[in-house]
Formats: sequence, structure tokens, C-alpha cells
Amino acid sequence: MDLLDEPVPGVGTYEDFNTIDWVREKSKDRDRHREIATKSKESTLALMKSISDAFSGWLLMLLVGLMAGALAGGIDISAHWMTDLKEGVCLNGFWFNHEHCCWNSNETTFQERDKCPNWKSWAELIVGTNDGPFAYIMNYLMYVCWALLFSFLAVSLVRAFAPYACGSGIPEIKTILSGFIIRGYLGKWTLMIKTITLVLAVSSGLSLGKEGPLVHVACCCGNILCHLFTKYRRNEAKRREVLSAAAAVGVSVAFGAPIGGVLFSLEEVSYYFPLKTLWRSFFAALVAAFTLRSINPFGNSRLVLFYVEFHSPWHLLELIPFILLGIFGGIWGAFFIRANIAWCRRRKTTRLGHYPVLEVLVVTAVTALLAFPNSYTRMSTSELISELFNDCGLLDSSQLCNYANVSVTKISSDALPDRPAGPDVYTAMWQLSLALVFKMLITVVTFGMKVPSGLFIPSMAVGAIAGRLLGVGMEQLAYYHHDWVIFRGWCSPGADCITPGLYAMVGAAACLGGVTRMTVSLVVIMFELTGGLEYIVPLMAATMTSKWVADALGREGIYEAHIRLNGYPFLESKEEFSHKTLAMDVMRPRRSDPPLSVITQDGMSVEEVESLIAETSYSGFPVVVSHESQRLVGFVQRRDLVISIENARKRQEGVVSASRIFFTEYTPPQPPNSPPPLKLRGIMDLSPFTVTDHTAMDIVVDIFRKLGLRQCLVTHNGCALHISLEFSCLPLQNGC
Amino acid sequence: MDLLDEPVPGVGTYEDFNTIDWVREKSKDRDRHREIATKSKESTLALMKSISDAFSGWLLMLLVGLMAGALAGGIDISAHWMTDLKEGVCLNGFWFNHEHCCWNSNETTFQERDKCPNWKSWAELIVGTNDGPFAYIMNYLMYVCWALLFSFLAVSLVRAFAPYACGSGIPEIKTILSGFIIRGYLGKWTLMIKTITLVLAVSSGLSLGKEGPLVHVACCCGNILCHLFTKYRRNEAKRREVLSAAAAVGVSVAFGAPIGGVLFSLEEVSYYFPLKTLWRSFFAALVAAFTLRSINPFGNSRLVLFYVEFHSPWHLLELIPFILLGIFGGIWGAFFIRANIAWCRRRKTTRLGHYPVLEVLVVTAVTALLAFPNSYTRMSTSELISELFNDCGLLDSSQLCNYANVSVTKISSDALPDRPAGPDVYTAMWQLSLALVFKMLITVVTFGMKVPSGLFIPSMAVGAIAGRLLGVGMEQLAYYHHDWVIFRGWCSPGADCITPGLYAMVGAAACLGGVTRMTVSLVVIMFELTGGLEYIVPLMAATMTSKWVADALGREGIYEAHIRLNGYPFLESKEEFSHKTLAMDVMRPRRSDPPLSVITQDGMSVEEVESLIAETSYSGFPVVVSHESQRLVGFVQRRDLVISIENARKRQEGVVSASRIFFTEYTPPQPPNSPPPLKLRGIMDLSPFTVTDHTAMDIVVDIFRKLGLRQCLVTHNGCALHISLEFSCLPLQNGC
Repeated sequence: MDLLDEPVPGVGTYEDFNTIDWVREKSKDRDRHREIATKSKESTLALMKSISDAFSGWLLMLLVGLMAGALAGGIDISAHWMTDLKEGVCLNGFWFNHEHCCWNSNETTFQERDKCPNWKSWAELIVGTNDGPFAYIMNYLMYVCWALLFSFLAVSLVRAFAPYACGSGIPEIKTILSGFIIRGYLGKWTLMIKTITLVLAVSSGLSLGKEGPLVHVACCCGNILCHLFTKYRRNEAKRREVLSAAAAVGVSVAFGAPIGGVLFSLEEVSYYFPLKTLWRSFFAALVAAFTLRSINPFGNSRLVLFYVEFHSPWHLLELIPFILLGIFGGIWGAFFIRANIAWCRRRKTTRLGHYPVLEVLVVTAVTALLAFPNSYTRMSTSELISELFNDCGLLDSSQLCNYANVSVTKISSDALPDRPAGPDVYTAMWQLSLALVFKMLITVVTFGMKVPSGLFIPSMAVGAIAGRLLGVGMEQLAYYHHDWVIFRGWCSPGADCITPGLYAMVGAAACLGGVTRMTVSLVVIMFELTGGLEYIVPLMAATMTSKWVADALGREGIYEAHIRLNGYPFLESKEEFSHKTLAMDVMRPRRSDPPLSVITQDGMSVEEVESLIAETSYSGFPVVVSHESQRLVGFVQRRDLVISIENARKRQEGVVSASRIFFTEYTPPQPPNSPPPLKLRGIMDLSPFTVTDHTAMDIVVDIFRKLGLRQCLVTHNGCALHISLEFSCLPLQNGC
Repeated sequence: MDLLDEPVPGVGTYEDFNTIDWVREKSKDRDRHREIATKSKESTLALMKSISDAFSGWLLMLLVGLMAGALAGGIDISAHWMTDLKEGVCLNGFWFNHEHCCWNSNETTFQERDKCPNWKSWAELIVGTNDGPFAYIMNYLMYVCWALLFSFLAVSLVRAFAPYACGSGIPEIKTILSGFIIRGYLGKWTLMIKTITLVLAVSSGLSLGKEGPLVHVACCCGNILCHLFTKYRRNEAKRREVLSAAAAVGVSVAFGAPIGGVLFSLEEVSYYFPLKTLWRSFFAALVAAFTLRSINPFGNSRLVLFYVEFHSPWHLLELIPFILLGIFGGIWGAFFIRANIAWCRRRKTTRLGHYPVLEVLVVTAVTALLAFPNSYTRMSTSELISELFNDCGLLDSSQLCNYANVSVTKISSDALPDRPAGPDVYTAMWQLSLALVFKMLITVVTFGMKVPSGLFIPSMAVGAIAGRLLGVGMEQLAYYHHDWVIFRGWCSPGADCITPGLYAMVGAAACLGGVTRMTVSLVVIMFELTGGLEYIVPLMAATMTSKWVADALGREGIYEAHIRLNGYPFLESKEEFSHKTLAMDVMRPRRSDPPLSVITQDGMSVEEVESLIAETSYSGFPVVVSHESQRLVGFVQRRDLVISIENARKRQEGVVSASRIFFTEYTPPQPPNSPPPLKLRGIMDLSPFTVTDHTAMDIVVDIFRKLGLRQCLVTHNGCALHISLEFSCLPLQNGC
């Protein structure tokens, strides 16, 4: 056994902003598991312990699902209430939102219920009427004031208590899952502040969503609950398995899509995703979805506001507009990423970054001032998406559904024929076009501010508006020109051939795909939103087109771009190597550099090693047989070496600067008057990963990715050796 | 560059029943890709080539989807027709199946249509009547004869033309995907014969399904279509990506579940599943599903016979019977695997295996004789499952739905209250119990015979019967004892509280899970069959219970058990190491063995190397600096060495037995009269994978799994080295 007799505290742990060694962590967990399994045969108590150990993972998943589901429900309800608070208040009790307030009202249709007597707008409450320009200005003012208050609270709380709570968190979670350590990023303060400020930020009417931050919230839950179980608390690799599952939980509650959540975690954020994690994330995602459903935040037993059930068929020719939407989504995605990154870089480098509170207040003021006059930007973005996705029924009285009532012979309730648009629809089209431009511009400056901000909802809104516009256009075209060749045969008068709501949905998927470059998980999420397999083909066509177009215009998705902007070490698994280089071309030290700093297995004193540590900043040193024959024996981490020497100087009798350090199995007898030797074989990694200097770099990178290495040694003919020091995107950037 | 000036044909390829080197194959593909990318900047033609190369993967996926979908449609239609042929024939045209034959008939209800005048049973056709014992015996006889004819044809065709067409194929596909080579297993003969014999085997009424073999059929399509594209034809690793996607396609058409298919491929069969493959398999699975839907084999625009749409809710307390079903499924799964493996081993070792045709005929005869009298075993298994899943409506006239009509105040069409069972239901219960025992026993001897045979459908049938029995029992219990504590509150009289069809579905999932140990993919497949998220929790509870129970009774799923039975080399990724061993403990040669056979980089003659090859059976040799200092230079494959020496002796002027072989970069000047040297640096792998002798075996196994290695060298202090020869289940069993 190569363990120290008395393990020194701190050996084998990691510093903040460092990368973990997956192989070592997994090996540690296997040892622990093996020990429990061996002991379990000895006594009943140990057997019980072994069983509870086996089920602790499932229990943890259950807890994560319950906690994240409950939090998501709370966030939904509070955000709904506070969004309505900007427009008015309920007389029955200020804690009711608009919909709840009017539930017991006697009016039957939705439109009338909207004007129920108990719900008072601020103007009604203050000046007693809701008509006239004065009341309008009153309402306008209150809307802007509330928005400013909410966003001020949000940004102040973030700055004061948890700076990590800002943004969407997904880039950082991707980095953490790949093995990086950012202490406190998933802590309880971050969780608390993020939950509160998320509600505030969403309610303030800023162009941001709660879906991305919900992933961060769920990961915080996962990380905090890990502390309840030794197995997960002590092992960084095991903890990351839980975080992968928690990311799935986040998407599951954000979109009511458990399967989509698991695929999102697999496709987008996770680094190491074994089958066990697949099962567990699925379980946790389900638990969370059912918790949220039992909270029922929207009162319709759906998990999201914009759930729709379509039944109208689509025609093969409609794939052309769907692909057009895909192209639009791709272009928008690429433009958004460039513009947003440029803006964020400006924030980082200029004086703009010194006034985050002011920035948030200005953006909120602009948003609120511009948003209020247009009813489509005034409503919350989720409501907007819900309205755009919605297929117009006969009884729908919204502006978008104001179609002329042509007399048709047979009307079935779920398939209305295409009808000419009424004047309200044209007004709505104008308003939607303005809303589109507004959303496109304001989102660029909003994402990245010092408040929690998700990207999913604004991107989907942009796409949904564009899609609805195209859909209504197509519908009117088909109505007035049903004798054109392209419509002939499938779009006769009186038939329901075009569904504008479907176009909105396809557009939303395309834009979201362009920004995030998700494909399968996105399609599955949208499929779970609609519950119909028949729309998978349009969605697939649009998202694939959007991904290809966006990839052609710029290689990175928004999360990768933010990772690079922030300089996190991250080894992108999708990236391909374009040059054929060998390990000997990239390793350090280069031929011209001073020779490699090595430690010999039996020849160095404490003083020599300490000066080596002081002179260099490498994160570890290879141990060799001797300076002449540089045959590799093992590898020792700088941190472990420092801690061990310090510890030995404090505790071990007689260890002084002249003591010799031995990494060999047996210490040779020392001359009588020499100080006692220091045996450090226990902290040496006896199985460092090595590649030969002729190994192609793409293979080396593959090994790093697949095994999650921290470092890798390069050997030549088995003897001379170098530390291979990869580019900063390899998970070993720091030091070494 | 380390390529040979003139590449010798055959170098770098693999022999049959050998394992591929994933790292080398992937590296080869990257080189190819890099070359195309570099060239693409030079001319427009090359650019076009590069684009077509990039899209060839998608085109291939499209073709695989179309071909597999079309084949699945053909199989469905023919099997449906031939199954009906056992009972009678259509007078309008013998090529109509029972349902088609009666489509134009005037009778309106399904039950009456069943007795349409154009469809004649064999007794009616021959003796003119369908009544009386003689007619019954006549029908019985014809049923058995057809069954024997079909199965005889099936087994004969398999034996004569494509012995690989038997069985379900999934164990072999798992092995192939892990890197093993079985030539012809996915060839065109196998495809043709498997398609035909699958129809015959299913129609013969044997207790087998077409779902597993459909995966094999889809993989054959994928493999054959790979030959159209150089990129996939020449590269074993790339081809396996296509096969992974094809496996998803197979499940997609078998169950009409594209997402489930992708997850099946990921969870159950694939070894290397990069994200790119995820997108592509999803695309292919969708194409296949839509091809199948446009063929519309069942005339109801569903992809499978047993699609159901449930709407009835379930109560939390019902989880107890669902978990009971899970326990049943687990026990049945474990029992089935043991019994089936014991039977298959007996077939392998005793004289039973010498008479495969006789075996098939005997089993068919027994199946047909026992199945005919019981209407639930006489119908095809898919139909049985469909009937068991079905929720009884008001108009359902089947035996299972013969409930007493209690007068209830409000009847809504989709929620019928629980009613007392009529006498027919009790008869059906008896028949189902008999069918359960029959199916359980006959499936054990059927799976593994020399005909194509899938396991999904028989397993699901067993579970569905058990579930339906329990469901009807629960329903009657709740009806007669609705005042019991457990029913009080949620099951008042006149309420629809228990849905026996849901129990059947949960039971089916539990049994299938017990046999195959699938979890997520199974739940998703069942979810796509029902189209309702609300049943995921019952399904999840049952499958997880079933997996845990089955795992406790026996570690392996049926596919792993068959892989082990057949002795294929397969490294199970789910298995954990229970012992802590080091690489030095398992490597060969052991300490007591003769020393390692090595080749020196510049010291050996052709004769010496040839005798080394003749004396040993290793699949490769390490190349070292010299015999004294065994520092590792590289590794050379036995096959490459043999081919190169042979080639040199034939082609190269003057290469004789005394020629010296050089693996060094520069050949030293030779003495004047010596024969010309043989330079073989080109065939040497300059970057062999090495681990130190102190590396823990679990890490070594992890490296093998994750990187898909063929061999790995063990070094000690960078110098002395051994070939690590892992257990036969590592993918390097052969030779070496």
C-alpha cells in the first residue's frame, strides 16, 4: 500500500481556481467503495452501511429534485406577482396577482375577467380613473418606478452579498463540471441571493429570462445537499456527477421537460457523464417536475406558461419557410454572440465596468420607458411567447386573433379555416415588428449585466415574434392566393393550412439554437412543450439549419464565448485540431529553455527542494532515478510537497534543511550524524500518465479530454522526459 | 512524417475476429480530414469536395433512415399477412390480410367486421362450415401446418445462406460496436436472409418478437450503405459511429420511438458515442420513423400496433402494486436469464446442438399445438399486448371488456367508472393465467434457436399479462371494497379509479427491464408509446425496482450473458473492479515466465525476426533500444510485420534472411558486402500507450475503456517493460 501511515491533512486536496485530477478522484472513490464492500461481509452494521451508501446517491437525487422543484415554484409565483405589481394591485389582498385576483370574479370570458373590479391599476387607485392621458402617464410612471426599484434591489443585493449570483451561470457551471474549482460559486449565499435577485430581475421587466439561472440555482441545491453525504462531500469527481444531474433538474423545471433536461446536461454542460448519472439525472429531473407540478404555479397544471397543444397538420412545402426561420435564427445567433461579446469586452476594459449599478439602472429605465407603450413588450416575455405560440381559436379575443369571420360551412372546434386578417391583426403586426427590433437590441446589452439573467427566454421571444410575423404573412398569402402553384393542392379555400403559432414555435427554436448551438436537447425540449411528435421534423429542420448557419458565421456558442472571454480553462470537446503537431512540439521546456526541473528519488535535501519550489511556479515535479539517467519514477504535486515539508518540519523530530528527502521504497541506512531522512513516497503519484514525444497532439488532447487529466509527462525512448505544458485551454493552465 | 513512402497494402488493416485500435483509427480519420481541409483552400473543386465530405455523414444517415424504415414497413406488412394466413384466406385476393380483407365490408362495428363474408377460415374453405368439432380440428391442423412450414423455411434459409442471421443480434452488435470485427455479420446476405426469415419466424407463431432483429437489420443497412462513402468504408471507427446511429434507427422503427431509440443506443449498445453521433442518430431515427409512418403498415398512422393514448389519472397509493409488478419483473428477468443461459449452454455442449432444424420444428409444433386452443396465445403477441394495454371503452366488445353495465348517473366517454366484471372477464382471466405460464416457459427455449428471434415482445407480453391480471384484481377489489381504508378518499363508487391497461403497461416495462436491465431508454420508449408524461413515474418506479431486484439476483443482463456465453471479447463499462490490483500483478510475462519477446531497433536480422514471429503468438512486439537497455522506442503489430517482410522479400531487391531490420530514423552505413537493410520505421507505432507497473488496474481498465485501446505497455522506471496482457474480456484477447 502506498498510503502514508498518517495522512497529512490537506494532501490530495485542491486550491481554489485549480483543476482537479479526475483519475485520482475516481480512483479514490473506488478505493472507498471497495473498502465498504469488503467490510460489509463482516458485520450486519457494516452491511447496512454499505446498503445506505449505495442508496445515498438516489436519496440525494430525490432531495435535489424536491428542493429545486420547490424553489422553482416559489420563483414562478413570486415573479408572476411582482410583474403584475408593476401595473396594479389587488384589493382583496395585495399578495394576489392579477389572475388570482380575478379568479372569483363573475365574468366568464378571459377578456372580461381581465377587467375585474377587484384589480385596480395604479391610476385607478390614486386618481380614481383609468381613462385619459393623465391616468396613462400615472400608470407609465409607476411602471418605470417599480422596474427601477426591483432592478436596483437586485443589483445591490448581488454586489453586496454574492457577486457570483450574476449572469446565467451556465458558462461557469460548464467550467466547474469540466473539473475547475471556483469556491463559493455554488454555495448557500449564492443560492439565496440568486433566488431573490432572480425574482427581482425578472419582475423588473428587463429583457432576460429565469431559465438559465434556474440551472445555476439547481446546481447550488445539488452542491449544498452534497454536504450531507460524506461520499459526495469528500470527492470532487462524485460531486460533479451530482452537479450534472442538477443541471438536468434545472432545465427540467425551467421548461417542464425532464427528458430534454437530461439531454441538455449531456449535450451542453456535462463533461463526464457516465450511465449511472444518466439514470440519476432522469430520476431527479422527474422528481423536480412533479414537485413543481404539485405546486402548480400557473394554475393550469402545466409546468411552464407557454405550454401548447397543437393538432393542426403541416405540409411538406412549409419546410421552406421553416428553413428560412432557421437561417434567420442562425444569423441572429451569430450576430448576438458577436455583439454581446464585444459589449462585454468593452465593459471589462473601459470605465463602463466601474458603475455596474448605474448601468443596470440606465438599462432598466430605457427598457421600461420603451416597453410600456407597446403592449407586446409590456407583458412579461413568457406571456408574450405564450401568446405567440397560441393558435387562434374561435373564442380567442386577443388582438392577434382578430380575423374576419367568413361564413364557412363546417366549423370543427379545433381546426379553423384560414381567414383574412382583421385590422387589429395588422396593428399587432406593427407592434410585433417594433417589439422585435427592441428585443434584439436591448438583449445584447442586458445579458452580462450584474444581475441574474438568462438567455433562453429573450432568444425564444425574438424567434417567436419573427416566426409569428412570417406565419401570419404566409397565412394571408395562402388565403388570398390559394390558386398559386405552391398552394394548389393542399391549401384550398376554407381549409386550415397554415398555423401561425407553429411558425412562432419553430422560430423560437431556431433563434435559441443559433445562440446556444443546442440541437437534440432543444428539439426534445420543444417536443415536450408541445407534446406532439409530428412537429419534430419542422423543429429539427429549423434547428439544424440555424446551427449550420451560425457555425459558418462564428464557431462558438454563447456559453463557450463567455468562457473564453472570462479566461476559464476549458477543453472544448467539440473542437477539432487543425494542425498536425506532435507532443514534442508543444511540450515545455522547449529545446531552448533551461532544462526540466526534476527531483531525484533519493539525492536531494529539504533545502534543495525548497529552493526548487521557490524558484519555479510549476504545479508539480517529475521524480527521476538520478540527474544523469532521467528515468521517470513518479510525479509529485507542488501543493502536496509544500504541505508535507511544512508538516514534517513542524511535527517530525529533527527534520531540518539538511535532511535528505527519499521517494524510494526503502531508505538506505544514513550516516550516524546526519539528520533523520524525510520519506515522501506516500505523496508521490507512482502512475503518472506518460506519452512519447512522437505522439500526435490530437491524441494527447483526446487523452486529456477523455480521462480528465491534470498533467501528462512526455518521454523520449522511455528515459529523458519533459512536462508537457499544454495551451491554457487544457485543464492544467494554472502553474505547472 | 512517419508514413511509408509506398504504403504496403494490408498494413494497418485488421484480421477477422480481431479488435480494432480506436485511437489509431480516429487519428487516421483526423489526418484525412485535415488533408481535405488544407486542400479545400486551393481550388473550388477541392472546396466542393470538402463540403460534400462534411455532408456525407448526414446523407448517409438519411439513406439509412429511409432504407431501414422501408424494410421495417415491409416486414410489418408481410408478417401481418402471413400471421393471418395461418387462420384463413381472403377471397378478394389472397394477398389481403384479415383486416384489409374486411375493410370494405358493410358491417360497422369491429366485432362484426371480424366475421366479414370475404374472409374464410380454412375449415370454411375446405369443408364449407366453421362450426362443429371437425371444422375446429381442421383449422387447428392448418394452423399447425402453416406454423411448421414457416419455421422450417426460416431455419433452412438461415442455415443455408446466412448463419449469422439467427438470434436477436444485439449481443453481437454490442461486441462489434466495442471494436471487435466479425466479417459478414452485417453483410448483404445477412440482411436479405434476416429480413425474410424474420417475417417467417414471426408468422410461425413462435414466442419471439421482431424488435431486436430489427436493430440488426438496421445495422446491416448502415454497414452496407457505408460502402458508398470512402470516409466510412475505409475507417472502422467511423463506421462504428454509423452503426451506433443505425441501432437507434432500429429501435425507432421497432417501437415508433425515435428519442427512445437514441437513448437505447447510448445506454445499451454503444461503446463510443460522441455528440456528433447523438445528433446524427436522432436525425436518422426521425427519418426512419417518418418513412415507416408514410408506409402506414397498420392503417392507423401509428408506427406500432400497441400504441395507446391514456388519459385516466393514477393515485399515489397505486405505486404499491406498480412496485410489486417491478419485483415480479425483476424476478422473472433473473429467472429467465438463468434458465435461458442454462438451456443455451446445454445446446452448445450436448447433442441437442447438432439438430437445429429438428429443434426449431419441435418447438414450433409444441408452441402451435398449445397456442391454438387459447385465443390469447393464438393471436400474434403484438396484438395480445395491444389488447392488454387497451383501456376498456363503452363500445369495446372484447372478452376482457365484458363488464356488467351498472347504471351510472354521468358517463363521459373517456372515463368509465369501475364496474363489476362479467363472466367473460373471469374466463379471460383464466385464459390469461394459462397464457402467462405458457409464454414464460416457451420463451426460455425459443430465444437462442437458429431463427431470428427478439426478446422484447415476449418479455413485454409476460409482463403485460401479469399486469393486466393484477389490474383487474385491483379494480374488482376497489369496486367491492371501496370502503376499505386504502381505497377511501380516492376511489368512491362510480369513480374510474383503476385502469387495468396501465397496469399491463407497467408490467410490460418491468419485465422488459428485468430481462434487459434498461432503465431510461425503456421509460422513454414506453413514454413515446403512450404519449403522456403523467405515466413516467409509475413506469420509472417499476423499472427501477425491477432492475434492482434483478441485479440483486444476477449481475448480468441477457445481452451481456449471451456475450459471455459466446466468449466474445467485451469490456463491460458498467462493471466495477472489486479487487485492488496493480498492473504489475496482471501483466504478462509474469515473473516466472520467460522474458519478454522484444525487437531491438537496429540489431536484428530478418531471419531472427521471422523466427520470433514463428515461435510466439503475440499480436505485436515492443521495439526497444537494445537488449541490454530495454528502453521503449515503439510497438509493432505482428500482422504489419508479417505483411511488410513478405512484401519486401517479394518486391525489394536483395532482401534476404540475413538483411538487418532497422526501426531507427537514420540507417547507419552498412558494411560493403552485406545485403541491403530493411527499413520498417513506417510500420512502427511511435506512440504506444504506456502505464507504469504501479498503476492500479482499475485505472488501466478505465484507460482501455475510454480510449478503446488494443494494447498497453507496462513500464518500470521508464525502462524495463512488459506487455500487459489483460483478461480475455479486454479488447485484446486474441494473440498478443
